[in-house]
Amino acid sequence: MTQSIFYHAGCPVCISAEEAILELISSDKIAVVHLGNAKEKIAEAETAGVKSVPALVLPNGNVLHINFGASIEDLK
Amino acid sequence: MTQSIFYHAGCPVCISAEEAILELISSDKIAVVHLGNAKEKIAEAETAGVKSVPALVLPNGNVLHINFGASIEDLK
Repeated sequence: MTQSIFYHAGCPVCISAEEAILELISSDKIAVVHLGNAKEKIAEAETAGVKSVPALVLPNGNVLHINFGASIEDLK
Repeated sequence: MTQSIFYHAGCPVCISAEEAILELISSDKIAVVHLGNAKEKIAEAETAGVKSVPALVLPNGNVLHINFGASIEDLK
């Protein structure tokens, strides 16, 4: 995996963080996944270590939880 | 302000986040402030809206709290 994945769920905190992240990181280095619209990706996010959204999973496996929008449990 | 400021306090969570952030963002776009070593900057960080470290303050004033290392109250 060479791209980072930004998981969010469309909440205001998520959207604000997404705009900030996309200003900092060029869009070809990042994939954006909306877990509210793609519930089949929730398990993948949990396996990667995502506990809440918004979160950024880096190519090296590090998970950065950025501010707090919603718990991943609340998205199920 | 055109640079982002990354505030941290040398904790393991901070260092891990710092390494991740510096891989994502070129170092000329970001200033790193260690609040444990520069306690005079704590007030500046609080004014910017930083509640805990590590945190990234963006040029537009947005504050991204990244994971959780320590409350800013605990650094005083």
